[in-house]
Amino acid sequence: MLIDGKKIAEEIKEELKSQIKKSGKKLKLAIVQVGENDVSKKFIERKIKFAEEIGVATKLYNLPVEILTEELREKISEICCEKNNGVILQLPLPEHIDTQRALDSILASKDVDVLSSNKNKILPPLVGVIKTIFEKYGIDPVGKNIIVIGRGILVGKPIANWLISEGATVSVLNSKTPNPNDYTLMADIIISGAGKPGLIKPDMVKGGVIAIDAATSIKEGKLAGDFDPAVADKASLFTPVPGGVGPLTVAMLFKNLVELNKY
Amino acid sequence: MLIDGKKIAEEIKEELKSQIKKSGKKLKLAIVQVGENDVSKKFIERKIKFAEEIGVATKLYNLPVEILTEELREKISEICCEKNNGVILQLPLPEHIDTQRALDSILASKDVDVLSSNKNKILPPLVGVIKTIFEKYGIDPVGKNIIVIGRGILVGKPIANWLISEGATVSVLNSKTPNPNDYTLMADIIISGAGKPGLIKPDMVKGGVIAIDAATSIKEGKLAGDFDPAVADKASLFTPVPGGVGPLTVAMLFKNLVELNKY
Repeated sequence: MLIDGKKIAEEIKEELKSQIKKSGKKLKLAIVQVGENDVSKKFIERKIKFAEEIGVATKLYNLPVEILTEELREKISEICCEKNNGVILQLPLPEHIDTQRALDSILASKDVDVLSSNKNKILPPLVGVIKTIFEKYGIDPVGKNIIVIGRGILVGKPIANWLISEGATVSVLNSKTPNPNDYTLMADIIISGAGKPGLIKPDMVKGGVIAIDAATSIKEGKLAGDFDPAVADKASLFTPVPGGVGPLTVAMLFKNLVELNKY
Repeated sequence: MLIDGKKIAEEIKEELKSQIKKSGKKLKLAIVQVGENDVSKKFIERKIKFAEEIGVATKLYNLPVEILTEELREKISEICCEKNNGVILQLPLPEHIDTQRALDSILASKDVDVLSSNKNKILPPLVGVIKTIFEKYGIDPVGKNIIVIGRGILVGKPIANWLISEGATVSVLNSKTPNPNDYTLMADIIISGAGKPGLIKPDMVKGGVIAIDAATSIKEGKLAGDFDPAVADKASLFTPVPGGVGPLTVAMLFKNLVELNKY
């Protein structure tokens, strides 16, 4: 069965729109971009569109690609002091910047992406996506063999951590894993954020697997997932790319914005 | 081969002693205990002994077992403002206390156990132990199948996180894992913090496995490990209990105290 991320995102959108309307608050999201990047541009456009649709204002800050880590931190600190309700720093950053140090300059109370080291009580957007899918489809992670592919700060790490806390049996694989099939063939659920189009083939998974594709690579100008689309035939649940995890992630970002500004 | 934790801890002790002497600083560790607990008592005694041997002063605060979370937080905040260089809250706490909330009241700059949500740059003591063992025995976690048993805040979680960051293929198992042997038989390295004496039998591991026992249960008045001692015969490296991870953990705690007070 295909998971229609777009449809679930629409439901969340409606819910947020009505919550914001009811609260009477004017919410504003600051988006910080360093340099230019085609993938980033696409994601920022989606976020701005989602914001407009739920009645949230946005302000985009374009910073020069040559900015240094410390200058970026200072700039973000300033932006955090301006009148807004959430601040996101669009990743990836240019290579010369210390990404975690830059993220740590975001005030916890405005960190809707939950990427600074100063944790707050909301879930990182991609974790929120997994939780939403689990709730929607009645999936209990306890006692399940779950494989997480990749260990990045946006996908692999936060998702693995959350699943461990929830009591799943979690294996985190990466490009150096000696025999990945030993793991994937055992998996009840595979969550992939490797960013390698078509990495996971049908013969690498067991029948009935739940396949969640959190990858965001661009192949021939289009978003491409880690799962070979043919895996959908063997899977009991499958998130397509595009139209699966992507729209849900944007929805979760704004759920966090509303959550952080509730009181 | 047995890993002699006591001997490595002695080496670290000598190193710290000389560092502290050279720096001319007077370091003091505050230890907060809530109620009474035989295991805690044992560990606190060891920490005080280690402190004395490297020339660090200690102050033990015994708080009543009925203290509430918020009162404990206030008390810890006060203790953090006193003249000391590190503050530890001995776990486990009584059941009515919100452990993470209590830990979060420790100032990051004094959190030598690295248990508050406000992370600093030092490694949690048990992670430091694993790192020390890897360095000492030339073990590269990249490309290894590593199993972590348990997901507690002292052992499983911090160790799994660190291993993931280091690029290992990490599986976190718990009591609900359907077929643990599928994982343990594949493992190059098993790190256990389940607290179930004798849980891992020789027939569950492959020959040459590296077995690191981070469990701290008490069985018949003695510390007992998760590995059946007979696993030592199949293992290429094995940490005995007692005398393996335990003394190294205490050594790491004081390494952190010195590290946080270096500048």
